Amino acid sequence: MNKLTPGHCDLDYFPTVDGCLQIGGTSLQQLAERMGNTPFYAYDRKIIEKRILSLREKLPSAIKLHYAVKANPMPELVHFLAQQIDGLDIASQGELRVALEASMPSQHISFTGPGKGMDELKMAIEAGVTLNLESETEMLRVAKLAETTGVKPRVTVRINPDFELKSSGLRMGGGPKQFGIDAELVPGLLQKLADLDLDFLGFHIFSGSQSLRAEAIIEAQNETLELAIRLAEFAPSPVQLLNLGGGFGIPYFPGDLPLGLSPIGENLERLCEKAKTTLPEATLSLELGRYLVGEAGIYVCRVIDKKISRGQVFLITDGGLHQHLAASGNFGQVIRKNYPVVIGNKMASKEKEVVSIVGRLCTPLDLLADKMELAKAEVGDLVVILQSGAYGLTASPTAFLSHPTPKEILV
Amino acid sequence: MNKLTPGHCDLDYFPTVDGCLQIGGTSLQQLAERMGNTPFYAYDRKIIEKRILSLREKLPSAIKLHYAVKANPMPELVHFLAQQIDGLDIASQGELRVALEASMPSQHISFTGPGKGMDELKMAIEAGVTLNLESETEMLRVAKLAETTGVKPRVTVRINPDFELKSSGLRMGGGPKQFGIDAELVPGLLQKLADLDLDFLGFHIFSGSQSLRAEAIIEAQNETLELAIRLAEFAPSPVQLLNLGGGFGIPYFPGDLPLGLSPIGENLERLCEKAKTTLPEATLSLELGRYLVGEAGIYVCRVIDKKISRGQVFLITDGGLHQHLAASGNFGQVIRKNYPVVIGNKMASKEKEVVSIVGRLCTPLDLLADKMELAKAEVGDLVVILQSGAYGLTASPTAFLSHPTPKEILV
Repeated sequence: MNKLTPGHCDLDYFPTVDGCLQIGGTSLQQLAERMGNTPFYAYDRKIIEKRILSLREKLPSAIKLHYAVKANPMPELVHFLAQQIDGLDIASQGELRVALEASMPSQHISFTGPGKGMDELKMAIEAGVTLNLESETEMLRVAKLAETTGVKPRVTVRINPDFELKSSGLRMGGGPKQFGIDAELVPGLLQKLADLDLDFLGFHIFSGSQSLRAEAIIEAQNETLELAIRLAEFAPSPVQLLNLGGGFGIPYFPGDLPLGLSPIGENLERLCEKAKTTLPEATLSLELGRYLVGEAGIYVCRVIDKKISRGQVFLITDGGLHQHLAASGNFGQVIRKNYPVVIGNKMASKEKEVVSIVGRLCTPLDLLADKMELAKAEVGDLVVILQSGAYGLTASPTAFLSHPTPKEILV
Repeated sequence: MNKLTPGHCDLDYFPTVDGCLQIGGTSLQQLAERMGNTPFYAYDRKIIEKRILSLREKLPSAIKLHYAVKANPMPELVHFLAQQIDGLDIASQGELRVALEASMPSQHISFTGPGKGMDELKMAIEAGVTLNLESETEMLRVAKLAETTGVKPRVTVRINPDFELKSSGLRMGGGPKQFGIDAELVPGLLQKLADLDLDFLGFHIFSGSQSLRAEAIIEAQNETLELAIRLAEFAPSPVQLLNLGGGFGIPYFPGDLPLGLSPIGENLERLCEKAKTTLPEATLSLELGRYLVGEAGIYVCRVIDKKISRGQVFLITDGGLHQHLAASGNFGQVIRKNYPVVIGNKMASKEKEVVSIVGRLCTPLDLLADKMELAKAEVGDLVVILQSGAYGLTASPTAFLSHPTPKEILV
């Protein structure tokens, strides 16, 4: 285990051979040549496989693993994942297309999102995917649409819980929220649902994202099951699906430590036992996005200029925030922090330098690394932003300044 | 003049007829029908024309007006602007293509950006556009490329000034920066430039963006001219072009007031007089992006659900941060503030409601308006985000969650 970047935790996913980072068994330099040009994103199958194996090993076998396509909708990646996991969670018609093309059976696809369009609902009903209902309005729309499609819609109710995932990056439950139906309103809604021609399957309860604290996730999962048990009493039929949400974080910033899976697995064993008697027909699932693919991906750009301005060293790359918004600190961060960054072709270099790495855009926001100590780099060297497999390319404003969209490769 | 949104200054660009916002002489509802579906961006030619006229009226006629294409590169819009202004400033090969297609003569196009690629430099030299040199490395690359192109490159030197535009949204000069060449290093660079086969034309000095304080802009412009005069002594030939930068802001947030042009115009008169004797061959230009088009554009989405969650009213729209990142507060803002928002088909409504307007994405970041008092809206109503003509669509992560890209129209 190398300590790749000061202040960041050990990230040893990618081996180093002759001082060059390896991804998918290829050296980064070879890969860059094969791609034709920088910048690009690369995702490593082996790392994803390992992550899934470790989840299978540490979590009870009764827990189904779903992938949240929005984390990274690259078709080859979704196809690869679809062969190894139990379901896909989608958030748009575009993602539905990707999920169906990945050959995931439609009964293992579920569609979440507070503002689904009529065309999206119709396509989803016809495809036979499960709709996570976000409001009474949506429930009535689905029932109405079903009259013309001739398919009985499979639905779960998305609940806005009365608790939240503590210390998570993004809170998605507790308090007033646009997501789902407030827990206290669910009994009334279920009563109305019973009168509609809908195939009620269960609940979807998502309380937050990107938590690195096992005990917070455990607490949220415990409360989630309790809430589901309580609300199941009001359901028109037994709960068959219970989506426990996600929330499993990955370390991005200095001081972040990886999430410990074992205590979560042990607790889930207890919850599965409890569910056997309280929700005997229910399949429990976790919806993971970032945790499955985030650490398997890198963003690679090249140093095209090096400048010392008033004592500060700048590496100017052919990349930028238009291709990796999150690394620039402009996507949900209140205080900008550095992603883990390395000079991919100088992994063994002993000569270090404190540098700021910027993109090619004409804006001071275009900062990929702020005063980091890295291997001393020159024009032509490859800058690698780690932990970039999720919420990378598609979460970036690629048309900003009209540069070509970078390629992606699954290796 | 209506006070459109509480806390925001009067924005009276778009008239109201029968309670409906008008854009380009059409009612918003008609326009939405014509567009086929929401969301979309619309830009009003008349408002852009008026803005240019007001600049022509209040600024000295000697000052050339340039448009920074990155603010909004929609081809029809750039074409429309190219007929009324004196030059285009570009930041990539993609923008160069748009500028050339807009029929702007290449000698009135200038190319800025800290990380220009070799292919970009080559295309720009061959097209005969002016290159704003950002570093010595880039200068040497341009000279080298010129050996094979047979065209003598037109160059200006971009200077990182030793001052900054005070109280601006984005500081781009002063202190260590990736942009341009530190002022104190410019004499040495000019000496080297003199020995190269380059057509030296002058300086580009950009000290900041989005300032609403005329006195700060005046101070920066004064310092810019002083610096240019000082550095002109070291130039290999007389300064013919002096780009004074931009910095003219538009009001976005509660408390923001429009920039007063008159004092800037009066001061520029003095500067033009001074330049007549100190830089007698120089053409002075301003590079404006947001100020030319920002207020002429709106983003329009539709309410598709309305939800009361624990006492808070949410309007859920078919838009979102993937189409208007800046309005969600995730683009360079430290503290999220509301853009000016109106319910476009209920402009005369007396019934108000405090609402939060969200997009359709499954993330709590997708907040377009946070607890604003607006006309009471229902499903089907049109939400309009004003001040959206610049850094809107192309500065947004449109692929995030795989929804279709919204259309744009110039009316």
